[in-house]
Amino acid sequence: MTYSQKQILLADRPSGKPTAETFQYAEVPVPTPDEGQVLIRTLYLSVDPYMRGRMNEGKSYVAPFQLNEPISGGVVGEVVDSKGSNLKQGDIVIGNLPWQEYSVAGEKEVRQIDPSIAPISAYLGILGMPGLTAYFGLLDIGKPKEGETVVVSGAAGAVGSAVGQIAKIKGARVVGIAGSDEKIKYLINELGFDAAINYKTEDVGKALAAACPNGVDVYYDNVGGEISEAVHKLLNKFARIPVCGAISTYNSDGADLGPRIETTLIKSSVLMQGFVVGDFSSRFSEGARELAGWLQEGKLKYEETIVYGFENIPQAFLGLFEGTNLGKQLVKIAEQSK
Amino acid sequence: MTYSQKQILLADRPSGKPTAETFQYAEVPVPTPDEGQVLIRTLYLSVDPYMRGRMNEGKSYVAPFQLNEPISGGVVGEVVDSKGSNLKQGDIVIGNLPWQEYSVAGEKEVRQIDPSIAPISAYLGILGMPGLTAYFGLLDIGKPKEGETVVVSGAAGAVGSAVGQIAKIKGARVVGIAGSDEKIKYLINELGFDAAINYKTEDVGKALAAACPNGVDVYYDNVGGEISEAVHKLLNKFARIPVCGAISTYNSDGADLGPRIETTLIKSSVLMQGFVVGDFSSRFSEGARELAGWLQEGKLKYEETIVYGFENIPQAFLGLFEGTNLGKQLVKIAEQSK
Repeated sequence: MTYSQKQILLADRPSGKPTAETFQYAEVPVPTPDEGQVLIRTLYLSVDPYMRGRMNEGKSYVAPFQLNEPISGGVVGEVVDSKGSNLKQGDIVIGNLPWQEYSVAGEKEVRQIDPSIAPISAYLGILGMPGLTAYFGLLDIGKPKEGETVVVSGAAGAVGSAVGQIAKIKGARVVGIAGSDEKIKYLINELGFDAAINYKTEDVGKALAAACPNGVDVYYDNVGGEISEAVHKLLNKFARIPVCGAISTYNSDGADLGPRIETTLIKSSVLMQGFVVGDFSSRFSEGARELAGWLQEGKLKYEETIVYGFENIPQAFLGLFEGTNLGKQLVKIAEQSK
Repeated sequence: MTYSQKQILLADRPSGKPTAETFQYAEVPVPTPDEGQVLIRTLYLSVDPYMRGRMNEGKSYVAPFQLNEPISGGVVGEVVDSKGSNLKQGDIVIGNLPWQEYSVAGEKEVRQIDPSIAPISAYLGILGMPGLTAYFGLLDIGKPKEGETVVVSGAAGAVGSAVGQIAKIKGARVVGIAGSDEKIKYLINELGFDAAINYKTEDVGKALAAACPNGVDVYYDNVGGEISEAVHKLLNKFARIPVCGAISTYNSDGADLGPRIETTLIKSSVLMQGFVVGDFSSRFSEGARELAGWLQEGKLKYEETIVYGFENIPQAFLGLFEGTNLGKQLVKIAEQSK
């Protein structure tokens, strides 16, 4: 007997903002695992800003999605059938898998996760790619010192909220920039940020100057564009800018023009470094161990915004660019079996 | 008896390109040294692009020149009168001194130089600030590895020509960008660059792509603007950009707009770092020793463009922005006494 399942294909390469035409639903058979493979039921699926880059034709830092092929990304799932020697039915795994309800993967293409450390969804957030992105970008490039001022944009997102908390653990003064009063309250009251600025309602330049009386030593940049330019004006001598993302520009079609950065960098001997989490892949276990430790000590909190149902994946993805998520944006596809 | 001498004051802060009105000549008495001071006759005077920034009101990386006060900069001079205990008449010194024919300075404000290592003018170039700027920016930030491709803009200037040669010493493939066919020939035939591009007559993007078949690993940037943007398109994964100068923009008055850099940095995990030579002041003796060694071994060549006469200082300075200099631009004010 063959079961059928839903999947989502890339139907069209968006020009500017993705629309309904970007995504194509398909109904396909649930695949059968071969020797050494497992069948995985998708439980949680991650939507992330970087996926927008993969929808373009040109090579970004990861290969583009193929037209008329399933979109893929981080998935936490449950092994429901195993032809492998290590994984067994009921094991929870994480991997890069297609946007579909069931996937087949080789045993070594996924990694088993431990539900006793944290809820399984956390492996897509604070204990996964976003947490590691925060950890390595901040500590290896930003190198905050005790008493320094760290500014983070996209501060209420999965990466930004981890960045701010790690900076606090390291003894820095932390200022976040986010897009709603709810997020601002969350950053200050729940995560312990020293100050937070609502870029949609405040004059970012003025608010930053007030929040950073000693200037800015580290700017963890998730957004690019004018918000970042307001921060650049306050950089101290020898400031560091880990450049993690530029979400303000991902849906922009034409040239993204702004003041050239060179004179700013020279004026204050500033270091600016782009990176992707994969640059640090040889040290993922170090990062994951540190993050799990802080999580278990209660020093690190995280929030998830969960949308339910396979049919709502595109909406959850598009919400990232509207800033509707607090913390990690996930889509819950199915319940773990008991 | 009191002698009189010429000096040049900053008469007006230029908006855009400096003009004749920017500079004011004055006739003032030759000062007399006090205890612990020396009287120095200016022999060579350095004009450098960074001085344009000091003519602005706002703080750049060095304090602005004061209106109606002498402009100052690197000078090699001869002690003609000494009230100090270490320096004596006839000693050759280097220091930051006013644009005038004679200056008084404390013994510790200047540094004696050794004419047996190189001609005294070299201490304002390859053995001085420009040489050290090349050395530390390239080796500490650019970190070229053997076989990598290094591109340098402003390649025929005092800094750029040293950068290219040091990169060759380190085993890199070196491509220079400069502004005349004479300079291109000089870079290839005299300094051993692997390729050089005339940005005034060639399509820089195409020429660079041809000259850098393996992409660009280090871009030592002296100029900023569109030339740099052509290089940015060719950056390899983990490329490094020491940002030394942005001469293309120093005389620009309005906002200097260009494509925002963030996505380029993320795409290839690029490091971009602004600096000034003073950031490395604790290691100047290391740098000077290395440079002098290479000079004496014949591994490092340098060129000087010398204008003669105090009255030609402004013209020599303005020529920097026209690219009229090959190597270090100096003004010779007086002959060393025999």
